[in-house]
Amino acid sequence: MAFSITILGSSAAIPTSSRNPSAIVVNMDYSYFLMDCGEGTQIQLRRSKLKMQKIHHIFISHLHGDHYFGLVGLISTLNLLGRKDELNVYGPHDLEKIIQIQLEASQSNLGYPIVFHITNPNEAEIIYETDEHYVKSFPLDHSIETTGFLFSEKQKPRRIKKAFLYYDFDVPVEDILKIKAGADFVTDAGKLYKNIDITENPPQALSFAYCSDTKFYEPVVEYIKNANVLYHEATFMEDMRNVADEKFHSTALGAALIAKKAQVGRLILGHFSARYKNLDNLLEEAKSTFPDTELAADGVTIKLDANEKTRL
Amino acid sequence: MAFSITILGSSAAIPTSSRNPSAIVVNMDYSYFLMDCGEGTQIQLRRSKLKMQKIHHIFISHLHGDHYFGLVGLISTLNLLGRKDELNVYGPHDLEKIIQIQLEASQSNLGYPIVFHITNPNEAEIIYETDEHYVKSFPLDHSIETTGFLFSEKQKPRRIKKAFLYYDFDVPVEDILKIKAGADFVTDAGKLYKNIDITENPPQALSFAYCSDTKFYEPVVEYIKNANVLYHEATFMEDMRNVADEKFHSTALGAALIAKKAQVGRLILGHFSARYKNLDNLLEEAKSTFPDTELAADGVTIKLDANEKTRL
Repeated sequence: MAFSITILGSSAAIPTSSRNPSAIVVNMDYSYFLMDCGEGTQIQLRRSKLKMQKIHHIFISHLHGDHYFGLVGLISTLNLLGRKDELNVYGPHDLEKIIQIQLEASQSNLGYPIVFHITNPNEAEIIYETDEHYVKSFPLDHSIETTGFLFSEKQKPRRIKKAFLYYDFDVPVEDILKIKAGADFVTDAGKLYKNIDITENPPQALSFAYCSDTKFYEPVVEYIKNANVLYHEATFMEDMRNVADEKFHSTALGAALIAKKAQVGRLILGHFSARYKNLDNLLEEAKSTFPDTELAADGVTIKLDANEKTRL
Repeated sequence: MAFSITILGSSAAIPTSSRNPSAIVVNMDYSYFLMDCGEGTQIQLRRSKLKMQKIHHIFISHLHGDHYFGLVGLISTLNLLGRKDELNVYGPHDLEKIIQIQLEASQSNLGYPIVFHITNPNEAEIIYETDEHYVKSFPLDHSIETTGFLFSEKQKPRRIKKAFLYYDFDVPVEDILKIKAGADFVTDAGKLYKNIDITENPPQALSFAYCSDTKFYEPVVEYIKNANVLYHEATFMEDMRNVADEKFHSTALGAALIAKKAQVGRLILGHFSARYKNLDNLLEEAKSTFPDTELAADGVTIKLDANEKTRL
């Protein structure tokens, strides 16, 4: 069990000396997913000590440069380092041709396959799924087509109480699976054990939601409901709400309202305008509405399973 | 009078934690020129404290990503920072469409004009010229079409010796210009002053040559002859000459041979393969043939006019 995110870039469109453009690595049980890939992400990956060849899925929220200008460089470097494994890239329609034109100009023959998956900017879709996890894209409200992403564990089956398993009768394997799925159990002697008495709730399925670039957009609440951690952009403060709306960005207060309505566990604010040299007021603005708020910082890892934060 | 170069990136294709991909700023009398623009160049510019809006001309040697993947991000950031001034971009044929497709995908309307100039990969051409300076592109021998660049002051006219100007007769302005151009002077009384006696050599016209990516290629010698500073790639050492040739790259010894044949003042080696953790041997290899050799390092400024080196 492992579920964590590592923030590689938390600036808005213009990078600063301490904040790179958008990029986050998600680790779900040691499968690694990259979300957005601003310029310099490959260097941030190198600094973070995360093995870049372990990434098999890259998700691009939209085609503003600060969210993907680092992708072609990362693809090239993975190739130079000898990659053979397939890479899946999920993003808007034009992404594939933008990458291809650059690979063609350099006469690069990649030694590994890339599979492009076009995201749907109009409705939520599960775009990646295994027995344990899934990733869902969902629409945001930005100046160009943009999706957010939800990374989630699947709900695990109910747990059988240990005391029940120690009773003096054998429970066949197929019955164990049925009990986990909610069935009662009847012994050979005809005694009934109700499911509610012999099972307990499974651990909570953890989830992480990412709202990259969006104006205040209440429909996202249904997609990110109860997420343990929400990373939401907060380019501006509320006193610049007009500018935020005009540029299809959020304020810190707007992000906090979304977090509150969605009843998430923790809110991480990111994508800060370079105009804010000090972010204390921006943080306070959000905290006034949603106390469990913190500021994103490049290089920080946040563990969902242990409620921990570490700095690389 | 000012003539200096600032190295922003000195790695080969794969950046390292201390070396960014290729980029150099040239300052000729406070006109700033950017040469190559690998990923992260805008962040390097920010670190260097050079005002990025002062750059009006960007030269791209070829379309391998480590030499231009940072260009579209820099163009975007210049726009976000409110640029109005024209930007001239010199590079291979496909560069314009690669930039345009990305600007279109982000629906960016630039607030300033970009003029693209296609470089000639087959013969040397002056591609920028003022009364005082010029920039010449010249062919290199790489796996795709690639040019080097020569940045040069124009030869200044001869200087009139101060002693002559203090003689007891007026020298008309038009005659001063003629004397500077090489004419003798005859006084009203008919006395002849030979040019050689009344003038002295002007200061040397300084020049800087850049050989980005190329295998050992002797024809460049004529283009970079007597340059004060030559920046030449040295991706490998001579024991990997076969690999260097196969990948159309140079060895440290090859770069030194070119420097020696071209009788340049100083040789700066760059574009090092990430395989070399320590570059001492690579430097020694070049020095054995061309003693005035040094290693490029990110953030270093080299003054051509004062023979100085400073670290930002």
